[in-house]
Amino acid sequence: MTNSNERVGSARFYLEDLQPGQRFISGSHTIDEAQIKAFANQFDPQPFHLDDEAARASLFGGLVASGWHTAAITMRLQVESGLPIAGGIIGAGGEINWPRPTRPGDILRVESEVLEITPSRSRPDRGMVTLRSETRNQRGEVLQTLTVKIVVPRRSDAP
Amino acid sequence: MTNSNERVGSARFYLEDLQPGQRFISGSHTIDEAQIKAFANQFDPQPFHLDDEAARASLFGGLVASGWHTAAITMRLQVESGLPIAGGIIGAGGEINWPRPTRPGDILRVESEVLEITPSRSRPDRGMVTLRSETRNQRGEVLQTLTVKIVVPRRSDAP
Repeated sequence: MTNSNERVGSARFYLEDLQPGQRFISGSHTIDEAQIKAFANQFDPQPFHLDDEAARASLFGGLVASGWHTAAITMRLQVESGLPIAGGIIGAGGEINWPRPTRPGDILRVESEVLEITPSRSRPDRGMVTLRSETRNQRGEVLQTLTVKIVVPRRSDAP
Repeated sequence: MTNSNERVGSARFYLEDLQPGQRFISGSHTIDEAQIKAFANQFDPQPFHLDDEAARASLFGGLVASGWHTAAITMRLQVESGLPIAGGIIGAGGEINWPRPTRPGDILRVESEVLEITPSRSRPDRGMVTLRSETRNQRGEVLQTLTVKIVVPRRSDAP
């Protein structure tokens, strides 16, 4: 695998490197109408994600992104910059909430925090890490919270 | 809005039409390598979603879809056929689990069940419905469970 020196350069975190309270902040992503409609066309073809006029008449009062689109962008931001986990971000599941919708022009950014670390008893090469992430827009409004359990490898040359 | 006669034709359910234990079954969707890689390229660019060889060396032992891709396909199936909710499927959040990964060639189908119905006290025109959905492949293996709260309108001509 790798050794601890590489961690400084590539900043990839193994189970031993994580501790509760640690935070990671992602880069940002600006979402626009075209992205919202393209995602909705493929995965969530409902009028308030696809059609401006229908969206204005809906309880959202205007075009909004699918919650799953917000979740997917959150993942992209975490993979690219927000959550440097060795072996990748492998989620087993979690709890997701969308306190308010994502709208065209919103600039999304994700802050992730390590809540808990549970070494595996049966698999000494890995552990489970509970992470909470908040996806906010440019006004600091929370668009999504996600608390997820992810599988994180231990460094193979660990004592 | 509409009247109860239309319900038979369009099979759109309002709050009054739902009851705990009710089930809805979606059509199916076959996922392939190209879809998996396209989604991953855009939203979850990790080697086990993008590259066959890297995926074989990962703990998945082969190419797998992003969990968010499974979630997005589940939504598509529910919007198209699996969950005929008047006003659309408007989720506030919920709990998601991926007991096993989605792989190329899997044929996905979603079964949704109404768990609970809570009329809103402050907004008499709507209520909150708790739904549980299972996304299974062609072998009946559960790929995703999702328990979600959705906003469902009451029929406007209700007594």
